[in-house]
Amino acid sequence: IDQGMREAAFARQGQLTKPPGSLGRLETAAVDLAGMQGCVTPGIERPWIVIFAADHGVVAAGVSAFPQSVTGEMIRNFSRGGAAICVLARESGAQLEVVDVGSVESPGELPGVRDARIAAGTADLSQTAAMTAEQCQQALAQGRAAAARALDAGADLFIGGEMGIGNTTAAAALICAYTGLAPALVCGPGTGLDAAGVSRKAAVVAQALKRQGAATGPAVLTLAQLGGFEIAALCGAYIACAQAGLPVVVDGFIASAAALAAERMAPGTRAWMLFGHASAEPGHAAALSALQAQPLLDLGLRLGEGSGAAAALPLLRLACALHRDMATFAEAGVSQG
Amino acid sequence: IDQGMREAAFARQGQLTKPPGSLGRLETAAVDLAGMQGCVTPGIERPWIVIFAADHGVVAAGVSAFPQSVTGEMIRNFSRGGAAICVLARESGAQLEVVDVGSVESPGELPGVRDARIAAGTADLSQTAAMTAEQCQQALAQGRAAAARALDAGADLFIGGEMGIGNTTAAAALICAYTGLAPALVCGPGTGLDAAGVSRKAAVVAQALKRQGAATGPAVLTLAQLGGFEIAALCGAYIACAQAGLPVVVDGFIASAAALAAERMAPGTRAWMLFGHASAEPGHAAALSALQAQPLLDLGLRLGEGSGAAAALPLLRLACALHRDMATFAEAGVSQG
Repeated sequence: IDQGMREAAFARQGQLTKPPGSLGRLETAAVDLAGMQGCVTPGIERPWIVIFAADHGVVAAGVSAFPQSVTGEMIRNFSRGGAAICVLARESGAQLEVVDVGSVESPGELPGVRDARIAAGTADLSQTAAMTAEQCQQALAQGRAAAARALDAGADLFIGGEMGIGNTTAAAALICAYTGLAPALVCGPGTGLDAAGVSRKAAVVAQALKRQGAATGPAVLTLAQLGGFEIAALCGAYIACAQAGLPVVVDGFIASAAALAAERMAPGTRAWMLFGHASAEPGHAAALSALQAQPLLDLGLRLGEGSGAAAALPLLRLACALHRDMATFAEAGVSQG
Repeated sequence: IDQGMREAAFARQGQLTKPPGSLGRLETAAVDLAGMQGCVTPGIERPWIVIFAADHGVVAAGVSAFPQSVTGEMIRNFSRGGAAICVLARESGAQLEVVDVGSVESPGELPGVRDARIAAGTADLSQTAAMTAEQCQQALAQGRAAAARALDAGADLFIGGEMGIGNTTAAAALICAYTGLAPALVCGPGTGLDAAGVSRKAAVVAQALKRQGAATGPAVLTLAQLGGFEIAALCGAYIACAQAGLPVVVDGFIASAAALAAERMAPGTRAWMLFGHASAEPGHAAALSALQAQPLLDLGLRLGEGSGAAAALPLLRLACALHRDMATFAEAGVSQG
């Protein structure tokens, strides 16, 4: 983070024709981006969105309102441009890439989709480690490779999204392990479980945590035990973005679990993250709190795919435009208070 | 409101490839706009922004952190394109018009500014009625005329903004009168008063309410007693938009006071309003509650000028794009939960 540019941007905000602080989070977002991009007037010209998709063995425990086939069906929907994130990417002029890191059945060759399947879904994390250590490294590497492609293409902002039936269970397990919170406080309805379903999910997560033992091992081991291919890929991408100085907008519940894993594995990664939205999934607040994050939006979204981060993109752009284009008191001949 | 279109839009949302309700407020915004625009797939192609500017006699009581000269200076800044709302309008491709309904000193002829000065500022509302009944009618008529220009130009969404040093005091007085809340609960720092200044402001509002007597008269009389030219103009514009079926996005504290006046004067006006943001000005919550309004954004803005409504514009557009362009389960061959 370029603290000098951050301070220069902060000073500029104080000179713009408005009461100091009156643009609230739009001011702080511009100042944060100035520090990240190392530029007193930051901008978002080339946003890059990657969706990592994978399946989860834990769906066998009955933790999702949707059948597992939806993961592959949604990969096809991404390819055809019909999913929410496709619409958001088009509206924002963002590049969109889909990486299949482990769907149960390969959806076949599809335009815009990279086949990088590590396995046909993870193992059931309530019974055994979700990934082997090697598989987890492969997924992290897929994330790093995606960040490298974004950088090669000149991206100035990175959004990672995910798709994977069952992945709120894996994300909840990770958040519990990293924060020490009880499963009942972190598990929620996901795509639409009823109260009995949420209780079952919490029991499944409790079983996984018990199996895994006290979460005292290295953060990467916890990720392999309880995560998923797409979560590990997001984690790898976040770490690579931070190392390269590319700002990230973190999406909702699952992305925040990956962000938490990234910060535990590579402390300092958090400094390169902005947070798009507060998810309707109740456990998101715990992950945000652990990351000391205040998201921009709170619209009751709970879709994933990077949709909450992509929805925040126009606000970040407005923040940059205001910061760059407003007149100063001196330029406009306006009296200061 | 076209309830049939609202229901058709709601049904469409249930068919799009996402868990039902998972786009949260972006779903309800699209459904609300469908009912307002009478179209199953609403859109925002021609947003229209009007800033009403005027001065306030009550600044003599020491209720503002900025000098009164700033109103005229900011009118010039609007004309030159340097203010926050100018940047937001440009970024959103919105038409922007400025109407001077009563600055203390005319800033002279300026491009993009209509000179419609009713008087050189209002009278001091703590001592006497802010406006005569006739002046209040003139200001309401200026608002109606602005709405008519927007409609003539084919606008499909209306945003009203305001500028006027001292106008958080007038807005607070109106909100107190309409809701019965005590001044201490509604008055806040505005452009930047310290705690002593806020107390002074609350005392000034209490004096005005006492002078005016129990707020049992017609709503329009309360508006004349305690309001301002720009607030009455906003009120007239909102009523005219509702009567013509043009959706409105209400901005922050002052605009919400005008919205409250509009709903009290012409019940049903509220149905044509969306709410852009929750202001950092503490009394805004009271006005929103009285209007049963849940704003889209909560970014700590407290600038006025319509900036919080304009910042919500891209989100409303994303809501329309998602509603229009996402694939249905049937189109995409995705299984429903």
